[in-house]
Amino acid sequence: MTNRYSFSSLGPGPFLTLILFFTLSHTTYAQKPEEGVMIDKIFDLALTDSRSYEWLRDLSYNVGHRLSGSPSAAKAVQWGKQMLDTVGLDKVWLQPCMVPHWVRGEAEKIAIKTYNGEVALTALALGGSVPTPSGGIEGPVVEIRSWEQLDTLGAAGVKGKIVFYNRPMEPTYLKTFDAYRYCVDQRVHGASRAAKYGATGVLVRSMNLREDDFPHTGGMRYDSNYALIPAAAISTMGANKLHDMLQRDQVISLWMQLNCQTLPDEPSFNVIGEIRGTERPNDVILVGGHLDSWDVGHGAHDDGAGVVQSMDVLRLLHRMGYRPRHTIRCVLFMNEENGLRGGRAYAAEAERKGEYPLCSIESDAGGFTPRGFTFEGDDAVFGKLFEKIKTFEPMFEPYDLKFKVGGSGADISPLKGMKGLLSGYSPDSQRYFDYHHSADDTFDKVNKRELELGTACMAALVYLVDKYGL
Amino acid sequence: MTNRYSFSSLGPGPFLTLILFFTLSHTTYAQKPEEGVMIDKIFDLALTDSRSYEWLRDLSYNVGHRLSGSPSAAKAVQWGKQMLDTVGLDKVWLQPCMVPHWVRGEAEKIAIKTYNGEVALTALALGGSVPTPSGGIEGPVVEIRSWEQLDTLGAAGVKGKIVFYNRPMEPTYLKTFDAYRYCVDQRVHGASRAAKYGATGVLVRSMNLREDDFPHTGGMRYDSNYALIPAAAISTMGANKLHDMLQRDQVISLWMQLNCQTLPDEPSFNVIGEIRGTERPNDVILVGGHLDSWDVGHGAHDDGAGVVQSMDVLRLLHRMGYRPRHTIRCVLFMNEENGLRGGRAYAAEAERKGEYPLCSIESDAGGFTPRGFTFEGDDAVFGKLFEKIKTFEPMFEPYDLKFKVGGSGADISPLKGMKGLLSGYSPDSQRYFDYHHSADDTFDKVNKRELELGTACMAALVYLVDKYGL
Repeated sequence: MTNRYSFSSLGPGPFLTLILFFTLSHTTYAQKPEEGVMIDKIFDLALTDSRSYEWLRDLSYNVGHRLSGSPSAAKAVQWGKQMLDTVGLDKVWLQPCMVPHWVRGEAEKIAIKTYNGEVALTALALGGSVPTPSGGIEGPVVEIRSWEQLDTLGAAGVKGKIVFYNRPMEPTYLKTFDAYRYCVDQRVHGASRAAKYGATGVLVRSMNLREDDFPHTGGMRYDSNYALIPAAAISTMGANKLHDMLQRDQVISLWMQLNCQTLPDEPSFNVIGEIRGTERPNDVILVGGHLDSWDVGHGAHDDGAGVVQSMDVLRLLHRMGYRPRHTIRCVLFMNEENGLRGGRAYAAEAERKGEYPLCSIESDAGGFTPRGFTFEGDDAVFGKLFEKIKTFEPMFEPYDLKFKVGGSGADISPLKGMKGLLSGYSPDSQRYFDYHHSADDTFDKVNKRELELGTACMAALVYLVDKYGL
Repeated sequence: MTNRYSFSSLGPGPFLTLILFFTLSHTTYAQKPEEGVMIDKIFDLALTDSRSYEWLRDLSYNVGHRLSGSPSAAKAVQWGKQMLDTVGLDKVWLQPCMVPHWVRGEAEKIAIKTYNGEVALTALALGGSVPTPSGGIEGPVVEIRSWEQLDTLGAAGVKGKIVFYNRPMEPTYLKTFDAYRYCVDQRVHGASRAAKYGATGVLVRSMNLREDDFPHTGGMRYDSNYALIPAAAISTMGANKLHDMLQRDQVISLWMQLNCQTLPDEPSFNVIGEIRGTERPNDVILVGGHLDSWDVGHGAHDDGAGVVQSMDVLRLLHRMGYRPRHTIRCVLFMNEENGLRGGRAYAAEAERKGEYPLCSIESDAGGFTPRGFTFEGDDAVFGKLFEKIKTFEPMFEPYDLKFKVGGSGADISPLKGMKGLLSGYSPDSQRYFDYHHSADDTFDKVNKRELELGTACMAALVYLVDKYGL
């Protein structure tokens, strides 16, 4: 690279140039342990000749969002197989699974009825929600900020009303996933907990730390002991507006109309590609993300990023002519968002075949700048495995990555019982929930270098686990 | 905060809840050393009640870009003083300095003349460039990728031509500032080095790792031994297009017209606010950024972010009722981009008054997610100072921040001789050069949480230095 050799004319002179060359350029492969050299090469290749970004552009614009059971999810499966077929792996195949098929139908409509007319709110039905009757439902609104408050109000305060859950994500949690984890219970359980007291419908403040007008959908579960009532997310701005109007006693009632429905399960697939191991082919090092997304935006960060990074890990190692000792497998899981059918199907077959999931790495936290990896595993083996993986952490010192104990990924969680190491790739989390499950999760929100650095981190960890085992 | 106390109804039960409460919520001030508690409080306040983001919105939309000597730079000075006056500091004042006054004039025009007509390129004159004659200049184009190549061509290959510097930033450098440092010499020295061989004008590929159509301007210097020739930046897409057309022999000549000029120096100011120290008022802990920007976009990341973060550090400490031992000072420097007059004026007055710059922290690397701080200082004292500051690093463990040896900031660099510690706040660098010095550096590119976390990091470091000294 010419520019690498043109320093001496910058002024510092050849000596300083030499120093700069050896300190800055980490394609300086001299005087480094073999594995350090290999990791540098992986990063250099990821930053100069990766497919991650172009694959994500293609998936975003030519397939688009891809909810399980939809025609675009079927298209995504074909896309994933076609792309992996171009890489030159030892094997690429589709693993069948049946998936739920929930459809949104016509766009949701929500209107706040006030003494001065109606105010419309942007909304998205929650995934799995029942529809309203065709004419919609209407009722007074009761705002709820905690479960205690709901239980205290009870049937007397809730019956016949629309419950508005408005407990925001906690901004002081440094990791936004912590704020999400302790807020999302409103979205998942809100409908049945309100139905228990006779509510007729539910609105949930979007899981978003930012104030904007994008509603964020996501999965919800009904408790079959109670009536199934319709549930939708409104944007953070919409939630603030409704809150203010309730405070000012301006709200007569709220009308909502959802046209979603659940259709019979559909056949679908996980997309899998592998480089066969030369020494321990039955021990699998897995990298994966989920191919399905919610039915808005591009599903670019959630989880197009994890999909293309996982595909590119195998592509990069293959291009480097690396022959692994263990089988290295890329799995594009189907149906993470509303069923985990793909993850369960993969684990069931691995169990049947007696494949040992030596190390499984999932990327499902967005295509942001890398911060590290989290690790978990079955209590019987985790201590030993984590102790071993920690010995690789110094290799990532130049990249400021940390190895921590923590959750891995939903799709690989069914593998836990098979006593391998599970890992979650952990990019910076600050911007993730700005986009998550919303129409704003589009390709243009992903930075090329941040995405590629994630690919490189995952490839480097896969390489180290393959070389040294666990 | 209700949501803090509503966990026990999420399912995990009171015991797990208690654990979660103590591990997740870092407003858990119990059982922590005093300074840890204070740092947690600083972060909580920054994430719930900071002004950084709203101040940046106001500066971006109501003042806008603010090149030294321009009416908007004068407006920015008044804006900075007005905002600091609302905080309730011990003292807020303006420190005068004369600044250069370069104006862009009418928009630049560049046209590639081909056998099939003209192709226009977006461009920005480099700051300090001379204009072309009113009718523009025209000549054949010679593409240069290294100084060796330029020197080899010499007058025979360059005379009468327009030199097109097209050496890209090196993508394999992990820290984009390294890629910038070893590429920007083309922008700074390109004109005179080409003029030496008789070139009539210069085009420089924008310092941008992304492929887009935004030209990125920036400072350049003339060597008075050679003719002063006009110089402009073209976008990375424009540079790639021109390169391809040159490869295909499609280019007859290139025409460029720049209407910029340098006017007489203008009076301007640094904006300064301080909380007076109770024990060592003459020892100053400084936080600062630069108030001026280039004359496109909002100057949001460069350096509106550093400006509002520095102001907010004093505001947060003041709101917490913190009485510092040393004087804590916020300095909004004028003229970092094309003269450093504000930084020099500040250092000269500090020297005159015999103020000791105990620790000076500059934020001028964008409003991105925090990664750490870099430190430098006069060789005579740096070792001891760095050893001491390193003892604070464990305090930032929960925030994944690293303390490293490295550059600090241009505006504070004139203080180096006074033997204090100099620090650069270091946010993640991956996206910085996407926006730097371009019309794309606008408010909407800044994430609220990432900005606020930077404010918190700076305030926490200021607090520790004040409490323990150096």
